[in-house]
Amino acid sequence: MTEADSTATQANPSVVLSWLDSANAEACEFPLANLPYGVFSPAGERPRCGVAIGDAVLDCQALASIGLLGQLDASVFAKPTWNAFMAEGTNAWQALRARLTELLGADSVNRARIEPHLYDRRAVELHLPIRVAEYTDFYAGRHHATNVGTMFRGAENALPPNWLHMPIGYNGRASSVVVSGTSVRRPWGQLKSPDQPLPAFMPSRRFDLELEMGAIVGKASERPVTVDEADAMIFGYVLLNDWSARDIQAWEYQPLGPFQAKATATTISPWIVTSAALAPFRVPTPAREVELLPHLRDTSPMLYDIDLEVGLAPSAQASTTITRTNYRELYYSAAQQLVQHASSGCPMRIGDLLGSGTISGPARHQRGSLLELSWGGKEPLTLDSGEQRSFLEDGDTLTLHGRAQGNIEGRKVVIGFGECAGTLLPALTDPFGG
Amino acid sequence: MTEADSTATQANPSVVLSWLDSANAEACEFPLANLPYGVFSPAGERPRCGVAIGDAVLDCQALASIGLLGQLDASVFAKPTWNAFMAEGTNAWQALRARLTELLGADSVNRARIEPHLYDRRAVELHLPIRVAEYTDFYAGRHHATNVGTMFRGAENALPPNWLHMPIGYNGRASSVVVSGTSVRRPWGQLKSPDQPLPAFMPSRRFDLELEMGAIVGKASERPVTVDEADAMIFGYVLLNDWSARDIQAWEYQPLGPFQAKATATTISPWIVTSAALAPFRVPTPAREVELLPHLRDTSPMLYDIDLEVGLAPSAQASTTITRTNYRELYYSAAQQLVQHASSGCPMRIGDLLGSGTISGPARHQRGSLLELSWGGKEPLTLDSGEQRSFLEDGDTLTLHGRAQGNIEGRKVVIGFGECAGTLLPALTDPFGG
Repeated sequence: MTEADSTATQANPSVVLSWLDSANAEACEFPLANLPYGVFSPAGERPRCGVAIGDAVLDCQALASIGLLGQLDASVFAKPTWNAFMAEGTNAWQALRARLTELLGADSVNRARIEPHLYDRRAVELHLPIRVAEYTDFYAGRHHATNVGTMFRGAENALPPNWLHMPIGYNGRASSVVVSGTSVRRPWGQLKSPDQPLPAFMPSRRFDLELEMGAIVGKASERPVTVDEADAMIFGYVLLNDWSARDIQAWEYQPLGPFQAKATATTISPWIVTSAALAPFRVPTPAREVELLPHLRDTSPMLYDIDLEVGLAPSAQASTTITRTNYRELYYSAAQQLVQHASSGCPMRIGDLLGSGTISGPARHQRGSLLELSWGGKEPLTLDSGEQRSFLEDGDTLTLHGRAQGNIEGRKVVIGFGECAGTLLPALTDPFGG
Repeated sequence: MTEADSTATQANPSVVLSWLDSANAEACEFPLANLPYGVFSPAGERPRCGVAIGDAVLDCQALASIGLLGQLDASVFAKPTWNAFMAEGTNAWQALRARLTELLGADSVNRARIEPHLYDRRAVELHLPIRVAEYTDFYAGRHHATNVGTMFRGAENALPPNWLHMPIGYNGRASSVVVSGTSVRRPWGQLKSPDQPLPAFMPSRRFDLELEMGAIVGKASERPVTVDEADAMIFGYVLLNDWSARDIQAWEYQPLGPFQAKATATTISPWIVTSAALAPFRVPTPAREVELLPHLRDTSPMLYDIDLEVGLAPSAQASTTITRTNYRELYYSAAQQLVQHASSGCPMRIGDLLGSGTISGPARHQRGSLLELSWGGKEPLTLDSGEQRSFLEDGDTLTLHGRAQGNIEGRKVVIGFGECAGTLLPALTDPFGG
């Protein structure tokens, strides 16, 4: 930024209050303290990078073009993903956040220059905020792993032997990642019921959600990384629904793990809530049952206190909240997941997306999948409408929400993630049809 | 191509004989009938697309620049990958091959214009021929699956229940794919011996190769595809060494499959041998033990008769051929793998790389990994030098070769893949060191 700009503002401006009124409403998910990054397009225009503030989106490309973002070239924000900005490095990440806080803060001297570049958030289209380099899905929630393991292997063998020693994961399919609002088609797959001698190819009958969060890797590495290095590599977080075909998975997953069961779609929320915005909400991982190997041990609190919930709305009906849990229920942080991921020398790239695994809490109403909520279909869930659900039905819309809440500068602040929504379309009648 | 060009050549030129003498040598791997695509850089110059012919590489960007490749813009070949060309579609694939056959054929009238754009293949640097969109590794070799299953689960349970019903696979890590000649660093990983109560983080002690071939997807899809559609989507094939840490895998892989065991590196050969070049060598898959579901059944021969071998050279020693097998030993073709991959609606992308899985034959000397050759380390292999190997040792260089051989126009022709080589470097002393 220019010297004139940097001296034109107060030394210690508020990081909570904005000149944009909608950003100061108590329940606002996108106050000045949040500033999440997304990719948007006004009607008929190209997608470009923006930041959510109150009810608006601020066009970062335009801000840079008129010289308000200092040395950052507007071309960085003209791209339809945040990958180019992430590649600018952690100093740039800090500088942009500080500058946006200044520009949008109550004491900003630039309000008149900024206002023309604000768009009504309801009137723009939102896109995937990153080009997903590769997508990895972990299994870092202990309650989820215990629930699933109990159903499949019995309570005594619920957790695999490796589970308490490292965050296990598998590579997912980056091409299947879609932004909130994208409809998802019920998949066909090869299924085999235990009571049938042979498999059949048919639409999945046990299609499910998984309530997760995704961590976005903003810095590349070519060698193993420490927990602190990993933590610093994470640019931000999104909500993530890892749509899962339980019946496809049951037949395909041994010995190579989930494949087509998880390849239809993975939905993420459109706004990247940065690690910086979440910093006030850091909490430690739960107590270890067995001590981790030194390279995987936490050095500071690296989980976050983020309330999570899922609404399920049958076609043309109101939504029922089917689960309420918290990101802090995970056993391993995203930093620990990243340490494990890079441990073999696996090259990590800008734009890698790490799914946390399903985030279930200890109580029944805190479970993050229908598989767990209905206990494998044995105890169907009753929605507010009276309808029951063991697994998803065609037309169901799932909406994930996430909010970190606390006090900053003595004021109640919500750091929201927006929504991560998707509607299930019926399976194709003929999957190989033209 | 221009009308003048297309009428200037004979109606039925040879597809075997070139005006470039080195391409006509009997053992030449890159005769006119091959024309594999790669990315090369002359000393000090940018990487661009080229085609191998005899001892030379022909610069496709330069050919297009001087108007010899018809409507294809030179910018397509100026890129350091073949992805842009693949996106031009199957008609362009056919047209380029036909045009290069004409230009390099014995009857070409364009020899004088082409010669300035030939480079000595030994003097150029070769790069990855594609930007790998995503990498998937299958397990489509029955002898390999049987061998590994027998070692781990006993002969009666060797093949997983799903194995004869579909080609199972897992998503690998695209960032780990490297071109032949790249050294590979022995990985660290979390290992747990059966006789130890706790895991330890240490360098892998059971690092291995896997002899595979990779199929390159050249056409995208957003829905399930038929076997015929899948076959037509495959642009070409490369040799592939899926470096594998058996001890990391043993501890990590249940229930989510291979992860860090396969993430250190996967080496591919630099030349894409096209499906078109391999067409004369098509062979059917082996007889089915159980009938496949209709959507997975072969409609025509979709495997290839390609002789494969692996040389292992300890540091500063001669190479010993440790295995000789054939691509036709696979149970599932790449087309069948791709059908399975897309079956859930998983979006497939241009540049997706599908590893076949280890290609072992029925006999002991045909096994495609040290795990099988040494039977889990119980029967070490003796090299020509007298040294023994159960798994790889630091300094070992592995070199894969592949050749389809037959008669075309009454002349013996070899369609070679060049080499897929890599040397194993010792593990880092401190994996987290600066």
